[in-house]
Amino acid sequence: MKRIFEIDPWKITSHILDKTDKRLQESITSLGNEYMGMRGMFEENYSADHLQGIYIGGVWFPDKTRVGWWKNGYPLYFGKAINALNFIKLRIFVDDREVDLAKIPFENFEISLDMKQGILTRSFCALGIKFDVERFVSVSIKELAALRWHFTAIDHQDHKVVIRSYIDADVSNEDSNYDEKFWQPLKTASQNNYSFVSAQTVPNNFGVPQFTVLAAQLVSGDFAATGHHADAKQVENDSEAIVSGQTKTFEKRIVVTTSRDYENEDAMLQANQAIFATQLAGQSFEELLAAHAKVWKDRWEKADVEISGDDEAQQAIRFNIFQLFSTYYGNDSRLNVGPKGFTGEKYGGATYWDTEAFIVPMYLAIADPKVVRNLLRYRYDQLAGAYHNAKEQGLKGALFPMVTFDGIESHNEWEITFEEIHRNGTIAFALYNYTRYTSDTSWVENEGSEVLIAIARFWADRVFYSPRKKVYMIHGVTGPNEYENNVNNNWYTNFIARWTLKYALQMLPQISSKYQEKNHVSSQEKEHWQDIVDHFYLPEADVGDKHIFVQNDTYLDKNLIPVAKLPKDVLPLNQHWSWDKILRSPYIKQADVLQGIYYFLDKFSDKEKRDNFNFYEPLTVHESSLSPSIHAIMAADIGLEDKAVEMYQRTSRLDLDNYNNDTVDGLHITSMSGSWLAIVQGFAGMRVSDQGRLSFKPFLPKLWHSYSFRINFRGRLLKISVDAHGTQIDRMLGEPIALSVNGQEREV
Amino acid sequence: MKRIFEIDPWKITSHILDKTDKRLQESITSLGNEYMGMRGMFEENYSADHLQGIYIGGVWFPDKTRVGWWKNGYPLYFGKAINALNFIKLRIFVDDREVDLAKIPFENFEISLDMKQGILTRSFCALGIKFDVERFVSVSIKELAALRWHFTAIDHQDHKVVIRSYIDADVSNEDSNYDEKFWQPLKTASQNNYSFVSAQTVPNNFGVPQFTVLAAQLVSGDFAATGHHADAKQVENDSEAIVSGQTKTFEKRIVVTTSRDYENEDAMLQANQAIFATQLAGQSFEELLAAHAKVWKDRWEKADVEISGDDEAQQAIRFNIFQLFSTYYGNDSRLNVGPKGFTGEKYGGATYWDTEAFIVPMYLAIADPKVVRNLLRYRYDQLAGAYHNAKEQGLKGALFPMVTFDGIESHNEWEITFEEIHRNGTIAFALYNYTRYTSDTSWVENEGSEVLIAIARFWADRVFYSPRKKVYMIHGVTGPNEYENNVNNNWYTNFIARWTLKYALQMLPQISSKYQEKNHVSSQEKEHWQDIVDHFYLPEADVGDKHIFVQNDTYLDKNLIPVAKLPKDVLPLNQHWSWDKILRSPYIKQADVLQGIYYFLDKFSDKEKRDNFNFYEPLTVHESSLSPSIHAIMAADIGLEDKAVEMYQRTSRLDLDNYNNDTVDGLHITSMSGSWLAIVQGFAGMRVSDQGRLSFKPFLPKLWHSYSFRINFRGRLLKISVDAHGTQIDRMLGEPIALSVNGQEREV
Repeated sequence: MKRIFEIDPWKITSHILDKTDKRLQESITSLGNEYMGMRGMFEENYSADHLQGIYIGGVWFPDKTRVGWWKNGYPLYFGKAINALNFIKLRIFVDDREVDLAKIPFENFEISLDMKQGILTRSFCALGIKFDVERFVSVSIKELAALRWHFTAIDHQDHKVVIRSYIDADVSNEDSNYDEKFWQPLKTASQNNYSFVSAQTVPNNFGVPQFTVLAAQLVSGDFAATGHHADAKQVENDSEAIVSGQTKTFEKRIVVTTSRDYENEDAMLQANQAIFATQLAGQSFEELLAAHAKVWKDRWEKADVEISGDDEAQQAIRFNIFQLFSTYYGNDSRLNVGPKGFTGEKYGGATYWDTEAFIVPMYLAIADPKVVRNLLRYRYDQLAGAYHNAKEQGLKGALFPMVTFDGIESHNEWEITFEEIHRNGTIAFALYNYTRYTSDTSWVENEGSEVLIAIARFWADRVFYSPRKKVYMIHGVTGPNEYENNVNNNWYTNFIARWTLKYALQMLPQISSKYQEKNHVSSQEKEHWQDIVDHFYLPEADVGDKHIFVQNDTYLDKNLIPVAKLPKDVLPLNQHWSWDKILRSPYIKQADVLQGIYYFLDKFSDKEKRDNFNFYEPLTVHESSLSPSIHAIMAADIGLEDKAVEMYQRTSRLDLDNYNNDTVDGLHITSMSGSWLAIVQGFAGMRVSDQGRLSFKPFLPKLWHSYSFRINFRGRLLKISVDAHGTQIDRMLGEPIALSVNGQEREV
Repeated sequence: MKRIFEIDPWKITSHILDKTDKRLQESITSLGNEYMGMRGMFEENYSADHLQGIYIGGVWFPDKTRVGWWKNGYPLYFGKAINALNFIKLRIFVDDREVDLAKIPFENFEISLDMKQGILTRSFCALGIKFDVERFVSVSIKELAALRWHFTAIDHQDHKVVIRSYIDADVSNEDSNYDEKFWQPLKTASQNNYSFVSAQTVPNNFGVPQFTVLAAQLVSGDFAATGHHADAKQVENDSEAIVSGQTKTFEKRIVVTTSRDYENEDAMLQANQAIFATQLAGQSFEELLAAHAKVWKDRWEKADVEISGDDEAQQAIRFNIFQLFSTYYGNDSRLNVGPKGFTGEKYGGATYWDTEAFIVPMYLAIADPKVVRNLLRYRYDQLAGAYHNAKEQGLKGALFPMVTFDGIESHNEWEITFEEIHRNGTIAFALYNYTRYTSDTSWVENEGSEVLIAIARFWADRVFYSPRKKVYMIHGVTGPNEYENNVNNNWYTNFIARWTLKYALQMLPQISSKYQEKNHVSSQEKEHWQDIVDHFYLPEADVGDKHIFVQNDTYLDKNLIPVAKLPKDVLPLNQHWSWDKILRSPYIKQADVLQGIYYFLDKFSDKEKRDNFNFYEPLTVHESSLSPSIHAIMAADIGLEDKAVEMYQRTSRLDLDNYNNDTVDGLHITSMSGSWLAIVQGFAGMRVSDQGRLSFKPFLPKLWHSYSFRINFRGRLLKISVDAHGTQIDRMLGEPIALSVNGQEREV
């Protein structure tokens, strides 16, 4: 654990610049607007260790797979979010000395991320000048990033300040497989205050489209232009001013257009220039910022969570929501929620099953239904890739990928790529989850049905009938608990596979005739699905006084010593034990059986929930950031309030407190919904029944005075407030609604 | 299958030079003398695809591990046999045109490997000249390689022939992980007919010693020296002659000394020069060759197998023996039997468990006992590495590596590196096997006891007690059948682990007092071992009318459709099925349960052997070159003669007929014992009982007229001949011996 930022309800502020924590500071001060985003690295030269990272949503490169030992069926490439053109780059000289905080003395340093408005500010004093820096990535004009520097002399002297402002296409990824560059610059041009660079991703052998990005800068303010340059890879606008006690301002606006939105370079350039001419011209920095801040205000209106009595928790929940919204707000169905968002390179890929398992349940409640519908459409649009993946494994139907940009699997560990197939079930579950929450059946009855049937066909082919045990089984899988690999009859996988087939059978009659025809399911096929449903093997056992669902065929043979009895110095296991020792241990990385129960909390009895939670929780090490939130919700459901709070605390400040010591690589974006889910589905016990009934069963964590959150539910905006006196529900928008609180009917 | 060489009892000859088969030709025409060896690539320039490969035993480089996804405990490097200085290199010019068979027209091409004498010859006509080339790697002077070229004009013209003879240190491995060079040249020097290069392996970060190699050449014959050069990486001696109808000869002798034998470069150079001065000076090429051929004659005397009625089998068995002897003949206990010997780069590493499982049983019979004793010593000398490997996995005792040069594991697939631990059992078994065959108990009572106890301690820690089933188990292993990974209670692994503990307990009282003290086994520890032996879980089951040992816990749940019922176009599975599909299939890559039965054929009942063979053989795809020989022996043992012959045929010409289409990478050296074992332990049914009793139960394959082989047994050399009339055993050396043939006592 390492906390480098101060506690504040709306701000992430630090007054320290420590070279050893620079990457951590950058990760946490990331900004994004779903279209693009960047780490909190400095604009100006910083010659010590840092990670330059600017990313553009959906712009990626298929990096040729590199493995130690090839396995049949491995994907040919790993899709990587690529480090885009560095368009914030500045070099600043004061009296011919370069501003480089790794080298020059400075004081009064402050960096602060204002989550309410989505703005990153920084100030420091050096070389006789006070510097005040602002930066935002606009959520009102997606192509716009802007920054402004104020310079004020604080030593009663005059200083010559020179600013060189760049767009640099000579960038590379730290994680490239072959140390290659992903970009080739196409065109550079510069004028007095304006310049641009276009660059294209280098050719690939995998038929993946090459992306082109065009970034243009316009500099303005109190500085006089002194020159401009364009070389093969970089453009530059130079300006200078004499800075005295009177503040002087430098402003840089960047507009980024890409081949994702425009057919060719000409169109990209025209559109880019049109944005400058129509949307930016005549708008001051303040006006652009105000429009941006207004959108953030609207977002918070719908989604804010207030916690009284626990400032750390308050800051954390807002930070998680802020970073999630910076990554994804559903405006482009070709995008998804990348595991690091725009905050780092690690894990490549745009899309993991995390989206359906952990992001969808939260976005259903905090944003418009179209946001989740776009996430569902994303999978629909990638069906071709999912069919390809199944075919690669010699199977029918569709297998959605573990990691992807385009639907084609790009991960390459056999025990994950080929075996962690439970992901397919969660993608079917999201169809159900969306429909249950929104009451919008139109998706699952049309496009969604294609996804559902394709997944059902995959499961029907992937199961096999064991003549010996006279049941359908699934061998050779890895469940959500990646601390066991290649197991047989993982309960969760079998359960979600059977559920998918059942749900598909149930939905078939409701599917629109167009999609009925498009994906005809014969009566023979239906009978086969029903046979699988009726004879699916779901391991159960009595263990002591508990009756449990068994994680997999041989799990119970293990030596089931609780985590609490392990010596403290072996935790986390993944830093202390050899992989094989982890694998044959009983310790669970993240919710596995419990993940399945979580999806259908209202379908299991209290005893089933209690027995399974009490059996598995003591064996769970929560070494995935996705784990504690599910346990928090489960614990709350069965009345273990302290346990629920303990689990919540493990998830909420994961990045702010750098719990796993890896936030340097970027934020754990897809885990960020966990603390929200723990509060809303856990502490407040929010449920939506199959009949569309909303209910709550709240409790107040002991440390907290009160908490409140907002949910969007079928056209209403509701504010739920919980304090020692009880639960208040305010309808802020929409029609009255009947719901239940602690089992009591209430009209709101 | 692709056969490019002609059938001949003692020769491997081809009259075709096909560019597409060049690598295959090179692999099969490899030469070696255990100290060094080389592929059959041409000396002169050949500008089309080929694989330059000269290797020196025990000279290797630790190439930094490169994997897609790091797992805790992975080795830091993969040891690679490195492509050494190219010391056979020539460039030959006839009337200023370079001899390059990829470019110039030629005819009457012949290449021929004489296995009786260990010499590679080649001839061809081109540019008006007939070329006759001879090459050998001396088995009488290990540091010597020699080659001789004869030139005869065949067009009644005079031709100017220029020969540039090189030693080139600018070589690299095709399989380097980072495309790096492994060599840095140290010193080059040239004189009129003589030159040398010394080179050192580049520094590494793993504490592995750097090797230095010094290669010197002396050229002689009818060609006049015209110059010499030494640049930074290469030395060159030039000579020329006018070639007419009178044959002119060019000879090149290379002497290689290394830091493995000499303390410093000076000593290496002195020793190198001393070999030229004392062992080579005054010796003609014919004399050197005769001394070399004499050693081969002695080797064949002890080991030849004669087959009448099947010329293909005759050629194959000699080829296998020849290539094995070229790789290893037990003269240096720091060496072992690499999977490709000196014939290619693939698989890196010097040593696999193949040595103990497949090489030891053959070398026991065809060579002096000291040869196998040196193989045992090799493991003893690497005990420190084996302790290290176990410690890396958090386990006690010693875990011998899957792949190694120095005892430290260097393979990096978790399911192999960490889980294919059965290898440890085979290394213990080799101690027993050696002792049983030779009656020499001194090894296992002294140094060998350290290995045995260390392995026993590993097993005692690696097993765990399942409180639920009240037995000791081993979870998370990969058996010899690598088509299942990470299984629980692999019968073979459990069996060999239990056997090791039993054998260790049995041997403990006999261990010499010195080693008793060195590795004190307390009575508590002995009791624990005994408890494990008494309560070890070995899965068995009735399947139909058979009672079998079950391959692992959930194997029988699989859909057990015999290989024969698979469509032909899915075989071999490893080229057609995705890895996960292979894993969950019932198909067995190589003998697994049967491997365990094979080790102790006299300890299992006929019914046990029959039931298990008849159950597992139909499910076995033999996609490892190590598999068919074990099945051949098992089949012969239970009287399935046709099956035994079928299995033999799958192993004997694996490389000569390029069955697996991968002989281009080098020969399958460690599989080469298979055909010998199939004949001797299979067809002839040779067994040695715990009491040291030798017995045979021969049959004659239908196609064969007769076969004979020689074995060395406790000071005797016996020749066993089998034909339609029966079995004859001749004692060629040593004292009389009582043995049994088909259960009948016989005095020989």
